[in-house]
This record gives sequence, structure tokens and C-alpha cells, in this order.
Amino acid sequence: MFSFPDRLAEAVRRRGPLCVGIDPRWESLPISIRQAFAAGAEQQDRAKAFEAFSLQVLDLVEPFCAVIKPQAAFFEQLGLPGFAALDRILKSARERGFVTILDAKRGDIASTAAAYAEAAFSDDVWNADALTVNPYLGADAVEPFVSEATKRNRGLFVLVRTSNPGGGLFQNLVADGLPVYRHVGKAVAEWNAPTTGECGLGMIGAVVGATHPKELAELRDAMPQVWFLVPGFGAQGGTADDVKPGFLSSGLGAIVNSSRGVTFPFHPDERDWQSKIIAAAGTAQRQLVAASAGNH
Amino acid sequence: MFSFPDRLAEAVRRRGPLCVGIDPRWESLPISIRQAFAAGAEQQDRAKAFEAFSLQVLDLVEPFCAVIKPQAAFFEQLGLPGFAALDRILKSARERGFVTILDAKRGDIASTAAAYAEAAFSDDVWNADALTVNPYLGADAVEPFVSEATKRNRGLFVLVRTSNPGGGLFQNLVADGLPVYRHVGKAVAEWNAPTTGECGLGMIGAVVGATHPKELAELRDAMPQVWFLVPGFGAQGGTADDVKPGFLSSGLGAIVNSSRGVTFPFHPDERDWQSKIIAAAGTAQRQLVAASAGNH
Repeated sequence: MFSFPDRLAEAVRRRGPLCVGIDPRWESLPISIRQAFAAGAEQQDRAKAFEAFSLQVLDLVEPFCAVIKPQAAFFEQLGLPGFAALDRILKSARERGFVTILDAKRGDIASTAAAYAEAAFSDDVWNADALTVNPYLGADAVEPFVSEATKRNRGLFVLVRTSNPGGGLFQNLVADGLPVYRHVGKAVAEWNAPTTGECGLGMIGAVVGATHPKELAELRDAMPQVWFLVPGFGAQGGTADDVKPGFLSSGLGAIVNSSRGVTFPFHPDERDWQSKIIAAAGTAQRQLVAASAGNH
Repeated sequence: MFSFPDRLAEAVRRRGPLCVGIDPRWESLPISIRQAFAAGAEQQDRAKAFEAFSLQVLDLVEPFCAVIKPQAAFFEQLGLPGFAALDRILKSARERGFVTILDAKRGDIASTAAAYAEAAFSDDVWNADALTVNPYLGADAVEPFVSEATKRNRGLFVLVRTSNPGGGLFQNLVADGLPVYRHVGKAVAEWNAPTTGECGLGMIGAVVGATHPKELAELRDAMPQVWFLVPGFGAQGGTADDVKPGFLSSGLGAIVNSSRGVTFPFHPDERDWQSKIIAAAGTAQRQLVAASAGNH
């Protein structure tokens, strides 16, 4: 069985570095889908609508991307029916051959962290290929995630420099001449080093926002064997130029997430929303493939 | 309706500062409970056993504490049946009049953070009185939690200085003369200030580990209006003396969590595990009431 970094490399070589984020929002769904599910009268109806829409999205974007990132929060918001929908979406994505990243930003200590990691990767629960993780609690809190991911041949993406406007409040504090996010980056590079696969990259990746191109370039240089998951492209303001510094000269090294930009490029009233998604995914794929080739 | 800080103050005045953590582990459950649920043959059986055990714990500890903190990870580990069990435990705790803290350490940006906050507080999902939150993503990531908690009259506990041995890796980095956790503490104090209730404390609390008494004392001085949730007492090594600095001279200001120490003070084979829990909760309550009076 291929290692996680090599599976990701294969996915990116096949369809480019676009990762499509599945962040369903009720008020953005096509009217036709909302009406098909009792206009969301119950939590259960909304969850079914999220599922129906997301499964269609998987269908529509499949030619343009090989990585899918569902956002746990939007499903948790719908309670148990929401979790059931998330489960079926992850299952369907897996069956179609997508690499799946569960974006849940988990973080806790000791046996609690181990429980989150088991939930993320076990066949009985989410069975995702990778999980996003928050590093604030330190190395011994990340270790149970690393250990479970290693055991099951999966991956992690640790938050290093986030894409939100206020992400620098603590991440940019300077200690010993380096901002906190660089200290986190150094730790991630160390944890990742022993896991390097044939592609030259390892299983412990970093989340680095597209909205900070200078910091992205700096981190790329500092962490040459680390896969980057780059959010903030598209709706959050990051451009294809902004993400260029995230790629290695091989064209690998980064997957770039777009959620709203690819999945909601239409008004809920529009009938032909499917072709808008196809067009948006195609454009994003083209832009990102070009950007990833830019450093050759 | 009382504000969250005043409800917490009332709970602590009534039964002392002990908070009991609900962190069920299959291998620690009494044999009798494991056997009653098909020895955990299926996820569903384990979840039912977690629920049965946790509801008994609520019964047993009720005379000794007024605050209950279920740990989301141990339920997520059991998938959908686990989430259903967590839901029923929170509901039962609420009906018995406990203040409930959902320990899920959530953290994300913008509408994603808002979705987590809605899940934590809405009647349709967890309906907890308070949620633990990770600050790494900065002020604009915490803001949606603050806004939802304010709207629904609930509380937050933001991770400031965690109790794990390696918690200092990033939290203790020194920037502008202060460790990162003090910068986080300052931000929490600012967010909290406008929310002060009649008890003199606000709705945005801080998680500060019992395993670092010096830092606990320092943070107590720096954040006099902030409720502390203090983990690390008991099984993790923190003593009643260690948590003393967390209390204000009023005896309020801190709730002290014990999970394993109170809920698993027995060997799984022991028949009379219930009286062990009663004894452990009684001892913890006495020690903590004395500790909270120590600064008078």
C-alpha cells in the first residue's frame, strides 16, 4: 500500500493540486435541492439536502480534482443527521478514489488526542485519509495523532499559518527572533522528516494560508519535505499568483483548497447551477496547474 | 435568566468547585457494565455502555459537584452511536441541574467557527452551557464563539496554559518579554471584561492547568475577572495545594476538573465500584472546598 504522501503525489500528478472543500451552507444551496427536502423543515431534511448536494459536487468536480476536504463544523451543526451525512459523503468520496481530508482541526492531550485520531482514521468512524490538527497544546499532544496516522498509513495537516485576517495575533508573535508560526513549522518539519515517502515528501503536512504569500514562500524554503494544504484561494482572496510560492520545483508540495469558489459559484435561484460548478472547478484546476508549473 | 458566570458562581457556592470530567474508556468500565452490553461486540453496544456508566456517574457525584464536563473525543471515537450517547448524557445532566461544559476544544475561522458555536449551544444539537475553545487562530476566530455564546447566554473556556507535560513547547515561547500563554491570557481578559456578571466574573473563561502552580498564580493575578477551568487535578498529578492559587479571595474564580480520579477509582472487577466513586468525589469536593477557602 502506498504511503500517504505518495498517494497524495499520485493524486496531484493525475488531476492537479486543486482540493475542493465541502462546506455546505443551507442558504447557499440551490433552491431546487432545498425544496426537494421539505424546505429544511427538520434537521434531518437539511442534512439530507447537504448530502444530496455534496454527492452531486463530488460527481461534478471529479474530472478536475483528486482531493476532497469536508469541513466537520457544517455537519456537526446539524447534529446526528449531519454526522450521518458526513459519514456517507466521506464513504462516497473514498469509493470514487478521492484522497479525503477531514477538516476538523482537532487537538487535545494524551488518550483524548488518541481518541480523536482513532475517530478520524478508523474504519468504524470517519476513515479519512488525513486530518487537520491544531498544534497549540504542543508536541506530546500532536504525538498521538502522528502515532495513529503512522499505524494506519494516513496523513496530518498541522495548522501553521492560517488564512484568516486576524491569524497573526498569536502566530506572528516573535520569540527568539522567529514568529511563533515558524517555531510550529520547525516542529512540523522535524516530526515529518522520518516519514518521507518516495515522492520526497512526508505524511505530516502543514496548513499555510494563501493570503500570506510572503510567509508561504518563507515556509516553503524552511520545510522542503512537507506537504502544504493551502486554504484561502478564491473566495477568501488568495490568487493563483499568491499560491505559486507554495510549490516545489517538482510541481508537487502543495494542494490548494477552494470551497465556496468552486461549490457555490451560483445564485440559489439559478437552474443550471451544475454547469457553473463544472466551469469554476475547471478554471481553478487550470489556474493551479499553471501555478504549480511556474516554479519549474 | 442568570448570566453564565453567575450561574457558575451559584453552582460553586452550592456544591464547591469540583467539576467532574466524563471521559469514558471501555477498558476501565466495570466488568458488570461491559457484560450487560454484549461485551462491546458492536460500536452501538460500547456507546450504550458509555451512556449507562456515565448516567450512573451523574447520579453518584451529584451531591459533590454542580459542574460536569463530557469529553467529546471519547464519544466521537464510537461514531454515530457515540454522539447519540453524548447527546443523552448532556440532556440528563442539564435536567439534573448541572452546569455542563462540552470539552471539544473547537477552533476555526469565520462561518466555520460560527457553525461549531451553534452546534455547541443550540437546542437542536449539544445545548451545552459552555464550550472549550482553542485560541491559535486568533481573535477573529474566537469572535464567532463569543458572539454565539453572548446571544445564547452561555460561556467559553479558552485554552491558555494546558496541563500536559509538553504544553510549554509553543505556549512558553517568550515574545515581547512575556510567554505566549500570557499574551493569550491578556486577550482573554480583554474579551471577557465587557461580560462581567454580578459575581464579578465574566463569561469568557480560561483553561489553566493545575500542573503549573506558579503560572496559575501569575495568571490569577493578571486576570482577576476571568473564570478558570483547571484540569490536571488528581490522576494527572495536580494536588489541592497546587490549585489554591487559582482561587480569588472570595473563594470563587476556579472550577477544578477531575476525570479518571473521580470516575475510575476502582478496578474493573470490583463489585462495589459505586461506593468508590462516591468516596472519591466526596474527598475531591472536601479538598477543593478547603483549597478555595485557603485564600480568604
